[in-house]
Amino acid sequence: MRSFEELSQLFSQRFTSDHFPATPASLYDPNRTFLQLGGKRIRPVLCLMGHELFDDITEETWQLSMAVELFHNFTLIHDDIMDQAPLRRGLPTVPAQYGVNTAILAGDVMLIKSYEYLNRIGLGHLPAILHLFNQTAREVCEGQQLDMDFETMEQVSLDQYLRMIELKTSVLLAASLQMGALLGGATQRNQERMYEFGRKLGLAFQVQDDYLDAFGDPTKFGKQVGGDILANKKTFLLIHALETANSAQASRLNQLLKNQPEDKVEQVLGLYRETGVDAWALELKQRFLNESMHALEDIAVLSARKKPLIELAQYLIQREL
Amino acid sequence: MRSFEELSQLFSQRFTSDHFPATPASLYDPNRTFLQLGGKRIRPVLCLMGHELFDDITEETWQLSMAVELFHNFTLIHDDIMDQAPLRRGLPTVPAQYGVNTAILAGDVMLIKSYEYLNRIGLGHLPAILHLFNQTAREVCEGQQLDMDFETMEQVSLDQYLRMIELKTSVLLAASLQMGALLGGATQRNQERMYEFGRKLGLAFQVQDDYLDAFGDPTKFGKQVGGDILANKKTFLLIHALETANSAQASRLNQLLKNQPEDKVEQVLGLYRETGVDAWALELKQRFLNESMHALEDIAVLSARKKPLIELAQYLIQREL
Repeated sequence: MRSFEELSQLFSQRFTSDHFPATPASLYDPNRTFLQLGGKRIRPVLCLMGHELFDDITEETWQLSMAVELFHNFTLIHDDIMDQAPLRRGLPTVPAQYGVNTAILAGDVMLIKSYEYLNRIGLGHLPAILHLFNQTAREVCEGQQLDMDFETMEQVSLDQYLRMIELKTSVLLAASLQMGALLGGATQRNQERMYEFGRKLGLAFQVQDDYLDAFGDPTKFGKQVGGDILANKKTFLLIHALETANSAQASRLNQLLKNQPEDKVEQVLGLYRETGVDAWALELKQRFLNESMHALEDIAVLSARKKPLIELAQYLIQREL
Repeated sequence: MRSFEELSQLFSQRFTSDHFPATPASLYDPNRTFLQLGGKRIRPVLCLMGHELFDDITEETWQLSMAVELFHNFTLIHDDIMDQAPLRRGLPTVPAQYGVNTAILAGDVMLIKSYEYLNRIGLGHLPAILHLFNQTAREVCEGQQLDMDFETMEQVSLDQYLRMIELKTSVLLAASLQMGALLGGATQRNQERMYEFGRKLGLAFQVQDDYLDAFGDPTKFGKQVGGDILANKKTFLLIHALETANSAQASRLNQLLKNQPEDKVEQVLGLYRETGVDAWALELKQRFLNESMHALEDIAVLSARKKPLIELAQYLIQREL
């Protein structure tokens, strides 16, 4: 079992090949430029690690990992349209640079290209991989739609939010691991454990992301701290605060949601501390991380082989906290 | 061999089944509503006819035909965003009714769903079908991008326009026929002839469409006659007129492109007649139709079996002329 860093480097070397035809350049250059922005390549490496937990990585898992990374980039391009995002990794997004129409088509061909890579998987595994890939792809779209729906909903329950995060973030991590495991010859049960490991890890990651946006160290956290609060974004923290606040606290919080006082971030953070959602979030994160680890422990392979996956989970979850 | 009408009816009966989960309704209801608008279902029926030319239709061709129709509807939904189209078949388009963001996602899941139907094709044919489907899907996106590019280009050559039409319109008709033929056990050579039949038929259809927009009978043609002229749309007629006009005619035509005089349509039509592009377009259409028919004749099955395909071509090409 190689480490995340080692596999990530190997993947990046392969992934630099040109995925698209030269023409029409107006369609394919935006995708080429976008892929050059790089990224942590977490999902394709999860495919590789999912496979390597059970057996030596084969050519078809390399093809799968490229499909998964292209799929992820398709979602980023279309999400940047929907979020009207001007920048990604400090550079203009595809819609900002090339317009919405080209961004729609660039995303579409990115998605189609991912199926071209999937079609290089052998007949013994192709239908099962396609099945899981298709289902996951649709779920990721469902998650994005729910996320947009929540923006205009008065109330979102914790269960609804969890389900949205699961769809938008977790299922692709989970399916990447499972598809890799499937190609590595894992039993159905072990595949399901891998899926569960990824699903819970994704939830833990999102709790952490919401927490850091409010309580993170601005010098370490990649984005503006308090951004979610200023945007009234429904997060684990806000949803749980609204669900557990006493009536005085709830009325103060609702007032703050309707207004933008200069010290809004500080006031909301004060309420989060009063209602104890900061500690609750850290506990919730730990609970998801524990459940994730239990799923991994439950897989019947030598513990030593699991080390890189455990290290990856720790890296994803504990950085910058 | 059954007729287009008969197969179209059978397809429509199957296609009315619900293709999407109940929730999130905010994502799937737009697609459900859109599919209920109906349509001629030409592409899926071409799959069925392509198969039936060689053998009795099997279950996997029904699945393929649903995939193809869903793919076509995906392109319509995303095209309606790019064209900012308010109406389709007299009803609000998906972006007009539900917003651009939902329309992007609705199209995305429509495309993904088409791959779910493809995954019901047996292993003996799945890779070959996926290969042709993926390539065609990307080409359709390329055609749409070229069409958008042409709007802002000073000059578009006839060859460039032909290639755009081929990608945007022809390849899906051609691939539908070929994929059906493939599932029907046709030889590689016969499959290629089917593709060529569809490709040339698509070109003939587009020449006719451009011709009718200028010279059609407004009481018979579905849309406003002269719309392309008023929008300065680069069509077979305008491109050829600019390529063959003498310098006086070219300067008049270029003046008309820069202005919107009240009698613009009449003046441009006058120039089209002067330069003879009306007769040229009818000849071009006939040439593509002939080439299409030659490809079909070249297929070694009993002539009688080809009758429904010939009737379909005649129906598509000669209506309303």
